[in-house]
Formats: sequence, C-alpha cells, structure tokens
Amino acid sequence: MSFFSSRWIEAPANATVVEAGGLPAGFRAAGVAAGIKPGGVKDFGLLVSDAAQTTSAARFTRSGALAAPVLVTQRHTQLDALRAVVVNSGNANAATGGRGIDDAAKMQGGAAMVCGVGESHVAVASTGVIGVPLPMDCVTQGTMAAFHELRPDGDIDFAEAIRTTDAYPKRVTLDIELSGGTVRLSAQAKGAGMISPGFATLLVFIQTDARLSAAECDLLLGVTVKRSFERVSVDGQLSTSDTVILLASGESGVAVEPQTDDERSFGEALDATLRQLALMVVRDGEGARRIGRVVVRGDHRVVDRVARAVADSALVKTALYGGDPNWGRIIQAVGAALPGAAPLAVDIAIEGIQVCARGARVPHEPDALAAAVQREEVEYEIGVPGEGGETEVFFSDLGHEYVTINADYTT
Amino acid sequence: MSFFSSRWIEAPANATVVEAGGLPAGFRAAGVAAGIKPGGVKDFGLLVSDAAQTTSAARFTRSGALAAPVLVTQRHTQLDALRAVVVNSGNANAATGGRGIDDAAKMQGGAAMVCGVGESHVAVASTGVIGVPLPMDCVTQGTMAAFHELRPDGDIDFAEAIRTTDAYPKRVTLDIELSGGTVRLSAQAKGAGMISPGFATLLVFIQTDARLSAAECDLLLGVTVKRSFERVSVDGQLSTSDTVILLASGESGVAVEPQTDDERSFGEALDATLRQLALMVVRDGEGARRIGRVVVRGDHRVVDRVARAVADSALVKTALYGGDPNWGRIIQAVGAALPGAAPLAVDIAIEGIQVCARGARVPHEPDALAAAVQREEVEYEIGVPGEGGETEVFFSDLGHEYVTINADYTT
Repeated sequence: MSFFSSRWIEAPANATVVEAGGLPAGFRAAGVAAGIKPGGVKDFGLLVSDAAQTTSAARFTRSGALAAPVLVTQRHTQLDALRAVVVNSGNANAATGGRGIDDAAKMQGGAAMVCGVGESHVAVASTGVIGVPLPMDCVTQGTMAAFHELRPDGDIDFAEAIRTTDAYPKRVTLDIELSGGTVRLSAQAKGAGMISPGFATLLVFIQTDARLSAAECDLLLGVTVKRSFERVSVDGQLSTSDTVILLASGESGVAVEPQTDDERSFGEALDATLRQLALMVVRDGEGARRIGRVVVRGDHRVVDRVARAVADSALVKTALYGGDPNWGRIIQAVGAALPGAAPLAVDIAIEGIQVCARGARVPHEPDALAAAVQREEVEYEIGVPGEGGETEVFFSDLGHEYVTINADYTT
Repeated sequence: MSFFSSRWIEAPANATVVEAGGLPAGFRAAGVAAGIKPGGVKDFGLLVSDAAQTTSAARFTRSGALAAPVLVTQRHTQLDALRAVVVNSGNANAATGGRGIDDAAKMQGGAAMVCGVGESHVAVASTGVIGVPLPMDCVTQGTMAAFHELRPDGDIDFAEAIRTTDAYPKRVTLDIELSGGTVRLSAQAKGAGMISPGFATLLVFIQTDARLSAAECDLLLGVTVKRSFERVSVDGQLSTSDTVILLASGESGVAVEPQTDDERSFGEALDATLRQLALMVVRDGEGARRIGRVVVRGDHRVVDRVARAVADSALVKTALYGGDPNWGRIIQAVGAALPGAAPLAVDIAIEGIQVCARGARVPHEPDALAAAVQREEVEYEIGVPGEGGETEVFFSDLGHEYVTINADYTT
C-alpha cells in the first residue's frame, strides 16, 4: 500500500515515495532506549543537521497549559535557525513547575553539547505522562547513546523513539523532482489522538535538503499545517505539548524560490505528506473502525465552527463507529454551533446521498445510505446559509476501544 | 431513598416530599399510549390548568436548528399565560420542514380544543427521532384519549409518557410551608443526556398552585434553570428541542410576593428540585457509573469556559468512568480552554486532595486519591488566576454503555 492511501489525499506529482526511508542530505538521526519507558523500548531521539546554513520554522499547541519543553523551545531558541531536535517519549515534562523548565533546559544543553551547536539552535520536545518529573539520568544517558548512533538512515529509529501509544510508527521519505534537481523530504510523526492515559500530544518533525529561506520555511509550514494537523480531531482535546518543526539543510544545492513552479511542486508534496500523516493520526486514534471527513460550505464566518461541532460531537462519532446513518445527530450538532439561527436551512449529504435539504428530510434510499456509512472513510457534506466559506475536518469515530484505552486503566 | 439524594443538593427546609405524587390544585394531567412508539407504551401527555388566572414562564434550547414544536411555542403562544402543555415522545418533529410546523400547530389546536383554552395558551413539545414526520392520526387519537384521562393525580402517567430512553421516570411532588399556608410544587422531567440514537432532549414541566405573577414566574425560573439544567453536561450536545415550562395556577390562594421570606422558601424548594432533577438526568446519562462535579474559581470571565471544558472532555469523562485519578487530563482541559495563558498557575484538588498547585504536581497520597475517585460522586476543584468568579458543572462519565447505546444500533 502506498503511503498516500486515502481517497482524500492526492499523491503529489513529481514525487516518489522512498520505501526504505532515509534522511535528506545533511541530516543524521538516532532513536535509542534511555530507560524512561519500561521494557527497554526506544524512548529517546536526536536529530541534527550538520549544515550551518540550516533554516527552520515551527508551530506549537495553543494550550494555555504548556509543557516545559514547549516553553523552553518557544522562548530560548531561534525558531528560524534550528539545527537539532532532542525528544523523548514516556514523560511529557508537563505540569512539572520550575523544575520542569530547568530539566528541559538541561536536556537542550546536553543535546547542544554533543551535537556541537549552540543551545538556541536546539528544539526540545517531550511526550508521555503529565505531572511526573523527567528522570534526568535517563536523559543524560539517552543523549550520549543517541549521539553515538546518529546516522543518515536514523529516521526509522527516530520515528520509533517518539511513539507513545501509536499503533505503528508514522514516517515517510519522498524524493521530489524540481527544475534544478532532486530534493528529499522526510517526516516523522507521533500521535494517536490524545487518547492514552496520561499521554497526549502530536509531534511532527520534517526535514528537507532543499534550500529554503527561513521565511519560505515559515510560509510553507504555516499553510500546510493549517490544511493538515489543524483540520483533524480525535477527541477534541488539545495537548499541552503539540510541536511541529521543519528543518531545511540546503545540502541538495537545489533552491526553492518563492512563486515558482518549484515552490508549487515542493509545497504540494509537503502538503500531501502532512495531510496523509494527519489522517494516519486520526486513523490510529483509538483503533478507529472508521474515519470521517466533514465538508462545510456557506457563510465564511461559521463554516469552521460548524465543521468542528460535527467532528467533535460524541453523537456523530458514535454513529460513525456504529455505521449508523443517523443524520439527525448532524442537524443537532450544526444547530448547536449556530445558536439563534433558527429556522436553519441546512443541507446534508452523506457519501453523496442527500438526506436533508433546507432543514427538512429529503426522501432517499435507506439501503444505499446504510451501505455507504459502513465504508472505512465516510464523507459528510453540509451546506449552511451564506457564502464564501468552505472547510473540512477529518475525525475519528468514538468506540469501545477508546473507552477501553482511556478508562480501563489505573495510574 | 429521599428524592434529594445527592450530597450536592441540600434538601429544602419547609418542604416535604409527597411520595405518592399528585398535582397542585387546579391542575389535571394524563399520559396515554397513542401509538407513536411501538409496543403500546405511553407516549402522549396532556397537562392543563383549570384556573383562568394561571401564569407561566418558559425556557428553550439555544440551538439554531429548532424543532417545530419549539418554534410554534416560542412564536405562537403567550409564554407568560400558558394554561396547557401537549407533548409526545417517540418523535421529535424536528427537521421536518413546513409540514412539521403545520403538524405542531395542529397538535396545539387539538389540545386547545379539548382543554377549552385558546391556542395561544397551549405549549407544544415533542421528543424522539429526528427527521420523520409526526404521525398525525396518533396525535389526534392521543389528544382525545388523554383528554378523557385527565386527573389531578395524572402526573405519574404524564411523567411516564414523556420518557424516551430514560432508565426511570423523573418526577417529584413537594408540599412547601409558607407564611400564608401550604403550596404544592410538582415537576416532571425527561432526559438521559442526548445519548440515544436519534433521540434527544430535555423536557421539564413544573406546576405549582402558589400565586405568582408572570414576572415572578419568569424570574424564579430563570434563576433556577441557570443553576440546574444549564449546569449539567452529559455529552456536550445541545438538543433541538429542550423545553422547560413553569405553570402557576394560584389555586392555593397563597401568594408568593417578591423579596419576602416566602419567596426565598419557594425559590429554595424550586432550586433544589430542579438541581436534583438535573443531577438525575446526568446520572441517567448512559447508565453512568459515576457523576462528577467540577467547581472552578478565579477570573469571572473564564470560570464557565474552564468548567465546561473539563466537564465535556472525553479524556476527563473516561477517567471518571474508569476511576482513574489522572489529573493530567484536567490540566490539559484547563489549558485548552485558556489559550495563550501559559505558564498557567492552576490549582487542582480531587475530593479535597490537592494534586496540583500553581501548575505543578503536589506530593499526595496515591492510595487515598485512588480510593476517592472510586466514589459514585467525584468532586474536582480547580483554581485559575484571577478573582470574582465561581461556577460549577455536573457531568456524567463516558463509558462502554454510552458507546453501546449510541453506536450498536442501526436505524
């Protein structure tokens, strides 16, 4: 199966998936077992660009309760000139107070030392249990071990090390043909929603050897994150630690200049990659049976609110899980998002079958609808009054696995 | 077990629960089987005050997708001078377009005719499946049958008739001692969250024979609904049909005047009644194992938002279900409600055990905490920066029963 496996993602033209993986030129990475997680599994990752001219961009959670590594990375690094990422799983270093900030700074300092770059060029990320101090002896040990393991094909171990409850690692390597030659793009993500006990977080690290200005990095990352990780919902819960970082080493010697065909090709590949990774996160959500896509068209001021209300509705999500063509729940979610709008002329189609027009039921073939909602990917199209807006949100279902993972557990 | 069974509700002084039920003077009610639901169960209710001077007040869902009966009641009745309520379960008459409006008006007209009051004095309510036209022959038949059954002790049948998936009927009768004599208060509610396939809605009907001005009805209902039904969450889903109606017949001859001790006594009884009914709705949510109360103190501009974020968090709700003392999820929910507030000095106590102070873990006894979260009612106290605000939200857990009821079903 190709990496680009969803019908909702168009595989990028001019790009080839490199099944064996491997980092772009200039990068080395490692993933090791540092003892933060039990059982000797990989839980510590290091990634570094050896190119001094490396540019970067980053995006973070908007939570008001930020984990210490997010605070340290936001406040004490040059976000447009990052060279390295140090990351652990098994402990989020969140709700750990002043000690947590100190620990994140030490983790940053250790990585800077072994990588031979300034501390302000090292991003820090942690994911795992909240409210427990980071075991710093493991961090020191992990830093040294990872340093010795750094390799150009270390992306696979690195992707493994950042997993928490992900059912499978999420990574890809692409070669992209541009007018000046081939550039490589690789990405590693973790996230299974925010579904696991005490664990949370989406972490995404992206590397390329294309030459991009820092401003271009920021532009491309901003646009593509908005179209991918900002358009998914597993359970409507915002993490303390979400971090997305793009590093561009420039080591291919191939530049991507603004407003060129190359920018479009590179942007399309980045866009498809992040959208597919985002869908993989939704799909991994809770061993989800099904994932949904809700598309809302109408007044540009309300489409986002309506789409999120549908995607986050426990009633819509359980119906998706059960394969229940219960569109009354969609009306209900739309109405909840638009107080005072009654009578509401809402249109609803499920997998192309119109079930509701201008707020009232449309006769439709129940068997066809029942079959449609049994698919692995179910699409809901909603029209609300007004014009100029169109948006989408991808979401997972809500089923017994979610409850089991999140409830049948004692810390 | 007393009606006032929660530790969070103080049983009102000067009031006695009348276990046998019975309506206040001036009222008659009935509940019959009209054939809207299968199986010959009660699904149609009628309630009327025989007193011409009856006053009333009402509150409705804020959904933008209002069911037809809500639209008809809001637009075509005198909400301060209602005399009768006609209600069915088994069909919400929602998303039924112009036909739905016509049907709700016909239902109103039929009830007005048999009760001998003007149409503008009859409230209409429906609860059940969305998007299916109301079977009007059943409505006609139900209206006639209910009319013949109207009785002063018809509240029990009436409460039965408004149930959809409620595990048990929710009703109470109280006698309240006031300075001028005894008045009676009765109430019937339905609502098990919005948890059942295609069904939704909270319906609450309250009657008293106290003499209240319409303005006093509105004031008392407004205050007590804010403290009860507006402070509960089963799954964060807003119904198309929520309706709360208070009718005061005045037939006891005992007046409740503004700013008197009698007003306080009556208000306290009404308040405790609605809060207990609201808790019963939460408790019935999905065969909930446990219910939670979150109390938030701090900046008055944010306490409500924070409390709802915690109460609606799928992670907090699954932890409550599992008896998991996972306070990291509470931090996460608070942070999500307060973007940009980092670093966030949040305090958290669970059942009086402080686990987090100023955003960082506080050492605590894990066994005591583990035992505390196994109780049937679990209290979370949260402090956020700022002053002047304190609020509470009651919420149900999220467990396998919720998923089973909502997913393992095909329409």
